[in-house]
Amino acid sequence: MTRLAIALGGNALIRRGEPGSTEVQRRNLVAAARGLVTLVEGSRAEIVVTHGNGPQVGFRAIGAEMAASVVPAPPLDVLGAETQGQIGYLLANALDAAFLERGKHRDIAVVVTRTVVAQDDPAFQNPTKPVGPMYDEETAREHARTRGWNIAQDANGWRRVVPSPRPIRIVEARAIRTLVESGVLVVASGGGGVPVIECPEGHFEGSEAVIDKDLAAVVLARSVDADGLLLLSDVDAVYRRWGTPRQEAILRLSVEEALEGLALGAWPAGSMAPKVRACAEFIQGGGRFAAIGAMENAVAIVKGSSGTWFGGESVGLPRRAA
Amino acid sequence: MTRLAIALGGNALIRRGEPGSTEVQRRNLVAAARGLVTLVEGSRAEIVVTHGNGPQVGFRAIGAEMAASVVPAPPLDVLGAETQGQIGYLLANALDAAFLERGKHRDIAVVVTRTVVAQDDPAFQNPTKPVGPMYDEETAREHARTRGWNIAQDANGWRRVVPSPRPIRIVEARAIRTLVESGVLVVASGGGGVPVIECPEGHFEGSEAVIDKDLAAVVLARSVDADGLLLLSDVDAVYRRWGTPRQEAILRLSVEEALEGLALGAWPAGSMAPKVRACAEFIQGGGRFAAIGAMENAVAIVKGSSGTWFGGESVGLPRRAA
Repeated sequence: MTRLAIALGGNALIRRGEPGSTEVQRRNLVAAARGLVTLVEGSRAEIVVTHGNGPQVGFRAIGAEMAASVVPAPPLDVLGAETQGQIGYLLANALDAAFLERGKHRDIAVVVTRTVVAQDDPAFQNPTKPVGPMYDEETAREHARTRGWNIAQDANGWRRVVPSPRPIRIVEARAIRTLVESGVLVVASGGGGVPVIECPEGHFEGSEAVIDKDLAAVVLARSVDADGLLLLSDVDAVYRRWGTPRQEAILRLSVEEALEGLALGAWPAGSMAPKVRACAEFIQGGGRFAAIGAMENAVAIVKGSSGTWFGGESVGLPRRAA
Repeated sequence: MTRLAIALGGNALIRRGEPGSTEVQRRNLVAAARGLVTLVEGSRAEIVVTHGNGPQVGFRAIGAEMAASVVPAPPLDVLGAETQGQIGYLLANALDAAFLERGKHRDIAVVVTRTVVAQDDPAFQNPTKPVGPMYDEETAREHARTRGWNIAQDANGWRRVVPSPRPIRIVEARAIRTLVESGVLVVASGGGGVPVIECPEGHFEGSEAVIDKDLAAVVLARSVDADGLLLLSDVDAVYRRWGTPRQEAILRLSVEEALEGLALGAWPAGSMAPKVRACAEFIQGGGRFAAIGAMENAVAIVKGSSGTWFGGESVGLPRRAA
């Protein structure tokens, strides 16, 4: 049976500009879950699902700062774990309902996941990922002084920036694999997993960092021996000449073309570049195929008629009887 | 092999009066995790662990209200799911470290758990569990009017009160059991699990309620066919004549004595009574033994030399070689 690892963009669950309310997430998750269920039912693929948490952990960090005078703000690793509970729970409810609409049932389990990163990852020397509230310069500098934060200015103001180290392995890999092999639809590595450093003594310590969820999805896919990796978001394909009048969706990318484009800076560093890198790395590591596309096109992507493909043939999702 | 379901009190992770900081939880979890690992290593028992979330969800609800002008406050089911991520993650790190101190390793997995409750549970007509911030009467009445909350006054002020329906079954039961049987130490049903109602169409909807974690622990114990149920908190035993000069720890309670005491109101409704009820129900449902005691006495409780026992003999934890 084909096994797919599927990553859902956090921005597809709370879209840009939407408020961080539970109602918004519930509504967006209905569509996402229906897409996933159509994929599972049509392809008979086993799937393991992961998801981003960018907007969610951002809202959580803003809320934690606002309440900090009464409830101490948790560190970023703990906020990440909280969003895994939050999004995973809502996604599980949405998946149950979507299977039921088709008269089906699948066991679903959300596993709170820790992702190991290296203490000597160069990202720790160069924090670049903005998280949490926007500050004026004075407040930002005060947080830098009193809390040891790294801060940086962008177009709209000052924010905390944290490292984004490379994911190495998943602490819960064996448990996740056991569940997948027994037929459970697993949701794992939410937000890329909570980043933990393996200490010289062998135990894990949470790290105030964020992990790119698409690179983490590669590690998850390998942990369960997935054939394919699907990175689904609110963007329908990888483009050449993106943002120019001559922009054009790319239907198929070889690993060589992908690596060349990455070296040339062909795609934005914060969004499409890590997705392209993730797909290339998955294929290089022995994965059969990978694809990037829009969440609502999930079925067409697996058929090979939407999104950008890396590696082998499409799964050849059988057409449903009319 | 003996299989134990162990419930840790949320108040043992953040003690009364302690701030709701991550540092406090980390510190308290070191002791809890060492106790659990001593138990596992000494008894060779398989364990599945659950935990309360009273203080944690309380702090989370207070923080969510303080930030509500910018980040919409999530409903109580979502807050419960968040605390499962938070506490489960910190507990997993603490357990890893405690095993490592003894040169051991165990796979640990935290499963975000949903607990089914009945839509017609009488608790929904009579909400009694206070959650979240304390209000003055005027503000409380406004929340009641505008948000449909039930409110109640206690010694210190007005608070929202929510139902505490009986747990019926765990949605993730098969996944949890699969993990336990493959040797994974599972943390599940945190905070009693997120309460969900099974709708007539068969899907689940979150419920703004809280589930007693000790009664939920009985459901968890049954789901994994546990031999024993240990309810560990900051209280060292069940007492007779509690709070009087003649108070006395009870070493052993039969199911009949427990039910009689419950009928007579011998124990406080919010704390010891549900624990005694949980143990009695576990034995009535075919469980071999149950016990109530202090977290730091976990090993002595299993030996039968601390806490209050229900049902059969102690596990007879072998003494460690000197």
